[in-house]
Amino acid sequence: MASHFAPTDPVDLTARLVRCASVTPEEGGALQLLDRLLSDAGFACTRVDRNGIANLYARWGDKGAARSFGFNGHTDVVPVGDAEAWTTDPFGAQISDGQLWGRGATDMKSGVAAFAAAAIDFVRQTPPDGAVIFAITGDEEGDARDGTRALLDWMKTEGEAMSVCLVGEPTCPETMGDMIKIGRRGSLSAWITLTGVQGHSAYPHRACNPLPAMARLADRLSSHTLDKGTDHFDPSTLAVVTIDTGNPTTNVIPESTRMTVNIRYNDAHSGDSLTEWLQAEMDNVCETFGVRGAMQVKNSGESFLTPPGPLSDLIASAVEAETGVTPVLSTSGGTSDARFVKDHCPVVEFGLVGQTMHQVDERVEVAQIEQLKAIYARILKDYFA
Amino acid sequence: MASHFAPTDPVDLTARLVRCASVTPEEGGALQLLDRLLSDAGFACTRVDRNGIANLYARWGDKGAARSFGFNGHTDVVPVGDAEAWTTDPFGAQISDGQLWGRGATDMKSGVAAFAAAAIDFVRQTPPDGAVIFAITGDEEGDARDGTRALLDWMKTEGEAMSVCLVGEPTCPETMGDMIKIGRRGSLSAWITLTGVQGHSAYPHRACNPLPAMARLADRLSSHTLDKGTDHFDPSTLAVVTIDTGNPTTNVIPESTRMTVNIRYNDAHSGDSLTEWLQAEMDNVCETFGVRGAMQVKNSGESFLTPPGPLSDLIASAVEAETGVTPVLSTSGGTSDARFVKDHCPVVEFGLVGQTMHQVDERVEVAQIEQLKAIYARILKDYFA
Repeated sequence: MASHFAPTDPVDLTARLVRCASVTPEEGGALQLLDRLLSDAGFACTRVDRNGIANLYARWGDKGAARSFGFNGHTDVVPVGDAEAWTTDPFGAQISDGQLWGRGATDMKSGVAAFAAAAIDFVRQTPPDGAVIFAITGDEEGDARDGTRALLDWMKTEGEAMSVCLVGEPTCPETMGDMIKIGRRGSLSAWITLTGVQGHSAYPHRACNPLPAMARLADRLSSHTLDKGTDHFDPSTLAVVTIDTGNPTTNVIPESTRMTVNIRYNDAHSGDSLTEWLQAEMDNVCETFGVRGAMQVKNSGESFLTPPGPLSDLIASAVEAETGVTPVLSTSGGTSDARFVKDHCPVVEFGLVGQTMHQVDERVEVAQIEQLKAIYARILKDYFA
Repeated sequence: MASHFAPTDPVDLTARLVRCASVTPEEGGALQLLDRLLSDAGFACTRVDRNGIANLYARWGDKGAARSFGFNGHTDVVPVGDAEAWTTDPFGAQISDGQLWGRGATDMKSGVAAFAAAAIDFVRQTPPDGAVIFAITGDEEGDARDGTRALLDWMKTEGEAMSVCLVGEPTCPETMGDMIKIGRRGSLSAWITLTGVQGHSAYPHRACNPLPAMARLADRLSSHTLDKGTDHFDPSTLAVVTIDTGNPTTNVIPESTRMTVNIRYNDAHSGDSLTEWLQAEMDNVCETFGVRGAMQVKNSGESFLTPPGPLSDLIASAVEAETGVTPVLSTSGGTSDARFVKDHCPVVEFGLVGQTMHQVDERVEVAQIEQLKAIYARILKDYFA
């Protein structure tokens, strides 16, 4: 019976997690705290560390369960930045004005705490016919090479599996409940170097300046409409993030110049198709201006989509029941570890309002943590109903 | 009678000047050497130093002479660069293979030596009815703030004057005698900063990236034809010499970016007209892209011309008589101190072939130094005839 247990306080748990200074790649005690708490509640906990990065896998229920609900999140946080600029101790977890203040308060220790509190209470009060799984990493804000990837690699080896997965990142732009993410755009960066022939500014015909070529290329790329959006995606975007030459003298035409572009792309493109396009554009200006081009590309993740269906319906109805808000199903925003989970099982993302994430004075409304726990609890209940 | 004097050896004098390590702003003994030599030949010598820069003014003949022929040049040299890369000691003035090797061998200690040797012999052998003047600076390769300008300022104060002036910089592109410079293009540099709003690469609509605006501006400026040349000038040229942003991260849209352009312009333009044009182009992209612009301009010198006439005829006929080559009257190339002298009196430039100037293994054909002395001697003779 439920009455045997005092409910787990998600606000207190958020505060205790915030007090762990777990700036990537420091574990900071955060995963140890969850390990103890979940172990006490009957979860089988395994640390899945790799290359100095701490990760925690926890399962309540049988390994081979037919239905298992997974939760993915991270306890690492970005650096505090200018500590003097903070109103409160960034690792103090002070509560005032109805808010809990500190680095990671929104991104995403409150999400981890809300889910952990919901799941602990749930398995104690109404033990489900299935498994509840946590895959929590200490490397989401960093390179993400040894975080969720390491957990998924280990799960594959061990035969561990999630039927579905919820990533608890902040997803709501304005109001609690206003957005669920069912996919993400891809992200690709390209580093382009154009090389000509150095010379004296007074004799430009004896030199070959790579900067007019770079300007033309940057203009062409920036002006191009990649697409107008697709069924579930916003239009793809391209940002020229830097052009650098480093020529200190006005009477010298430089030999080379460098540009970096970043593309956030939807399912109308792939990393390969964009790389081909960039290469063709670069080759085109190289031919026009008589310069040489070199390009390096890093594709951080293809776009992906969990099409609207049972999982997003489940989350949306729980959100609506608890908040009265009908969530938009979106694929906007940056990347998240859902880009790795999507290769394992259907994945959606839902969390609180993330307006102060990564900022000085990051903070979260205490009431939102409570509400998030209630939403996650309802999701578990409905999933196993 | 001429027979009383042994002729002054311009090759030996060049070698003695090269052995003075007069890298700007060091005097290095070069002006002291000329001071002694010219004083011995009856020139009234005055050091016109300013702000730590050494300059030498020397006059043979009366201060108020109705006709005076001036010679402007410099004894300072650019640094040797990689001393290990030189075949000979850069300050050794070694003579081999018919060439004299060393920093300043062409730019322009041989020019100074040839003129000094020619003038000393000339005033001794056939004392002219007029004055011969030297305005020699130690700050031509540097900022040129306290060099020829200081000499001209001092001359104005003292009532010293040149009727005409020859600048002895290397002017011949290929063959001794093939080019006289009768003017120079102007040089203007502009530093442009465009500022937008920083943001996350994943949310470009919340930011305002200044780089597309800068690319458009750089493309427009580079593509523009300033003019097609004028009667005595090559077409004006514009070089975008650097674009820099300094944004190290691919997921951030930068707040601002900087560009430097350098314009070499003919008499179809002025510093003011070009500044107005640049401002209008910048304002135009600022409006199109919604960014803010700021521009700083430095006009190093307006274009100027000593129209073909008696002075250029005098030089050209002397060159042709000594070399058999008909010199082209040109206004090409970079700036020189003629841009200051032109406000004082008609000025033209003639010197030897400057192919190795500013390079490792700078060197000059010994025979060219002798020939240059003969040309300068003929110019003096014809001028005072």
